[in-house]
Amino acid sequence: MKPFVAPVEDILFSLTHVAGAADLPDWDLAFATEIAQHFAAFAEREIAPLDELGDRQGCRLQDGRVYMPDGFAQLYRAYAEQGWQGLTAPDKFGGQALGDTMLAITAEIFVGANHSLQMITGLVPGAIRTLLNFGSDEQQTRYIPALVSGDMLATMCLTESNAGSDLSQIRCKAIKTDDGWQIDGEKIFISGGDQNISDRILHLVLARTSDDGVKGLSLFLCPCTRSDGRRNAISVTRIEEKMGLHASPTCQLAFDKADAELIGTEGQGLLAMFTMMNHARADVALQGVAHSARAYDVASSYAAERVQGKGVDGVPVTLDQHADVHRMLNEIDTMAIGGRAIAHLSSVTMERGDNPDLVAFLTPLAKVFCTDAGIRSAELGMQVLGGYGYLQEYRLEQTYRDARIAAIYEGANGIHERMIATRLLKGRAADAFDAYLAVNAQTPVAQDLHAKWKQARLDLLAKPDPTLYAHDFMALTSGTLLYCLWGTIKTAAKHHPDPQRIERLARFAQMRLHADADMRVQLLKG
Amino acid sequence: MKPFVAPVEDILFSLTHVAGAADLPDWDLAFATEIAQHFAAFAEREIAPLDELGDRQGCRLQDGRVYMPDGFAQLYRAYAEQGWQGLTAPDKFGGQALGDTMLAITAEIFVGANHSLQMITGLVPGAIRTLLNFGSDEQQTRYIPALVSGDMLATMCLTESNAGSDLSQIRCKAIKTDDGWQIDGEKIFISGGDQNISDRILHLVLARTSDDGVKGLSLFLCPCTRSDGRRNAISVTRIEEKMGLHASPTCQLAFDKADAELIGTEGQGLLAMFTMMNHARADVALQGVAHSARAYDVASSYAAERVQGKGVDGVPVTLDQHADVHRMLNEIDTMAIGGRAIAHLSSVTMERGDNPDLVAFLTPLAKVFCTDAGIRSAELGMQVLGGYGYLQEYRLEQTYRDARIAAIYEGANGIHERMIATRLLKGRAADAFDAYLAVNAQTPVAQDLHAKWKQARLDLLAKPDPTLYAHDFMALTSGTLLYCLWGTIKTAAKHHPDPQRIERLARFAQMRLHADADMRVQLLKG
Repeated sequence: MKPFVAPVEDILFSLTHVAGAADLPDWDLAFATEIAQHFAAFAEREIAPLDELGDRQGCRLQDGRVYMPDGFAQLYRAYAEQGWQGLTAPDKFGGQALGDTMLAITAEIFVGANHSLQMITGLVPGAIRTLLNFGSDEQQTRYIPALVSGDMLATMCLTESNAGSDLSQIRCKAIKTDDGWQIDGEKIFISGGDQNISDRILHLVLARTSDDGVKGLSLFLCPCTRSDGRRNAISVTRIEEKMGLHASPTCQLAFDKADAELIGTEGQGLLAMFTMMNHARADVALQGVAHSARAYDVASSYAAERVQGKGVDGVPVTLDQHADVHRMLNEIDTMAIGGRAIAHLSSVTMERGDNPDLVAFLTPLAKVFCTDAGIRSAELGMQVLGGYGYLQEYRLEQTYRDARIAAIYEGANGIHERMIATRLLKGRAADAFDAYLAVNAQTPVAQDLHAKWKQARLDLLAKPDPTLYAHDFMALTSGTLLYCLWGTIKTAAKHHPDPQRIERLARFAQMRLHADADMRVQLLKG
Repeated sequence: MKPFVAPVEDILFSLTHVAGAADLPDWDLAFATEIAQHFAAFAEREIAPLDELGDRQGCRLQDGRVYMPDGFAQLYRAYAEQGWQGLTAPDKFGGQALGDTMLAITAEIFVGANHSLQMITGLVPGAIRTLLNFGSDEQQTRYIPALVSGDMLATMCLTESNAGSDLSQIRCKAIKTDDGWQIDGEKIFISGGDQNISDRILHLVLARTSDDGVKGLSLFLCPCTRSDGRRNAISVTRIEEKMGLHASPTCQLAFDKADAELIGTEGQGLLAMFTMMNHARADVALQGVAHSARAYDVASSYAAERVQGKGVDGVPVTLDQHADVHRMLNEIDTMAIGGRAIAHLSSVTMERGDNPDLVAFLTPLAKVFCTDAGIRSAELGMQVLGGYGYLQEYRLEQTYRDARIAAIYEGANGIHERMIATRLLKGRAADAFDAYLAVNAQTPVAQDLHAKWKQARLDLLAKPDPTLYAHDFMALTSGTLLYCLWGTIKTAAKHHPDPQRIERLARFAQMRLHADADMRVQLLKG
């Protein structure tokens, strides 16, 4: 098997020269490089080696408690002690007060090393952001330091058995008592709903405070331990048997009048939860990028070493000399670099803080493109390895299994596509995206694609049911953005340690994106 | 979980009204229907229920012998006793003497019910065909009746650790002795290389009789038991840990001067082995079709029952009423029906026996299209189920894992694409395909696509390295064929129990195929 290597150079190139991080007021390339190298070394040496064991051993539910695979508790402790959990938290709560771009660096590396563990720890920055935006000073003081130190991990409790994509169906109730609230009901698919790696867990629970559809939903803080020190009335009733992510316990939680406190305004739970969800969605996009990068690393290393077949001159060649393998490697590599460019553009725009409408448009776009790309990359990577790709030994099959969920969770990709084709398309988010393209479409082809996208937007707005076209419109949208981004990437190639690779990929990507965009335009007329 | 249901009506419709089986001299629809229904009942009641257990339990290697999951031996015995192993074998050897179209019916149903077990039993018809084409009368008499009765199963021993796609690198040696041959060397990835369900195993082994590249390869019959009754010197040195197909033991076999006999002519082993390989490739195409059909069955049933979200009028609707889910279901269903049409066209043409050149072209084309479609169908099926699709409970994740190998084994898809873009394109195989299109492209769009395909063929023949374009040319080729086939399917819709479904799918498929073909033409110019 190929040990994990963090794609540090690609990440720093993307942030600095593609996504515009260099223009951020606080950007410090030397510092970002140091952070990236430091975390990469930790991920390569300590986090990645537990990924396979975690997959094989999985989690177990015993006497109502969840046990993570061997070594995960120690690993998490080391990670927390190094301060990584508080990377973006304010310094007054013990955090490092760094920006989202730094988190984009460490999150991608973490997923490449160990998706399961990243999922559980990765919810904390979103929980902190939710507390900062909606919590009282007292709630912030009580919870954020514990989240920063790692004593406490967080969960996001939304889904119920009849409320998956449609949160208006949530039935879990919040009951007002004399001294607070109690949560009563069941939640499913709760990642890290219980575990034995952090002392405490803070559940952020969306529950019903009135019957008024989504307007009857409020957000609650529901810690695993009551204020008097006893365990709260939350129990794990099952953990799911999944295709992958075996080291991430997916729990069914029963809240049996569990003590809870309201965060934010009653009836505005969805709004508060969206802070956490959008954080999670940005994270999931990076998961897809990490899978693409990992697939590229494993497949390209294998293909460069494995001698098979002969070249046109009859001399034995390595696999990567075969046209089809070369194409597959290019495809994986362009998905990693292209997806990362979108995700980073979103992170940098978020950190700059001056264009929330563009962030609102880029978040679902990055989530869909990067997660589909992660799955496709793992598939192609296995194909490069041939029969060996299908074996557990070469580890790509784990990437294939782990990557699959990313297109489903945090809003199935079809939901995001629909949101872009309907709500976002009508409003300022799409205007902001349009304005971005107007500035960044700098070649005749890019400008032509931009014009086609504008026309497609108008056409879609005039359709009686735009959702019929949501899938192809999303592809046209991400394709148009990527075409522009590859223009930027190509121009910046000289700043990358391997400029020839970047130029080759830019040609490859733009040719295929152009052809695909034309196809989507044709399909959108259908 | 959704129990397996064999797509009997779709299969019979495809053979009779799409692939032209009705024109075969021996075709008897009533009899084919009886066979299909009979086997479907057996597959649904007896074969499918062991599929999940087989996946969970897997095979084990103990004291040098391989043990299949519980119940597989009894199931195989029942299957063999019903005479299914001899379906296409001549009656003088105890077979049913039916054609390849009948095998296409049962093989697809078998895979849908239990891919692992089908793989092991499915090699027998190819082994019998190889014996009939290349074996002596005495060899035929000695082996075929045992293969027909099920006492003996067959394996295909090609791959070695350094000879995967490139068989010229085979090192396994055949040594001539006074009274025959001995095989010495190691083979990997041998499906059913050992098992405890049949009394005996006949290994068909490609081994080196001289140093002259592929011309130094000969084919050998190497039974697990010597003529004196002792075990032959063949041992299982490991079984692979794979992502899926856990009930199919993938063995590494050590031949330690194992007794063997030559079949066919010395130095022409590859030619003889191709008989078995082409059989296996046709079988693998049907595996892809079966995965698509199974994914459609599970996903469409789920989507028709699960209420989620609301329609435009605000009333709760089932999942299949959402545009995106509807699109995904259409996509899966068109892949099942379209892929089946290609595979059946190939089977019927093979059985008719008057156009081997067309068969030579269709075999790799069906293998690539159907296996890629099987993977994509399983992926989309999981997406329809959302989070539930990722759970073991709903069984689609097993389809996702099992389906993946089909694009890799029996020649990785890239190898087939290369073969079409190079060797087959120059010769009579592509001429035969061209002639087929000339007759069957009956609408202006179909004729336009055919013209574009002809031009692309000419362009490709003039390129210094056509392999660079092999992937897109394959997509244009299968797309052009499918466009024509969907014309036939649409015309025949009235013969299907659900003509509206067929007409809807034909519109959906042709629109997307047309757009995709235009994209491929553009990419082939690049």
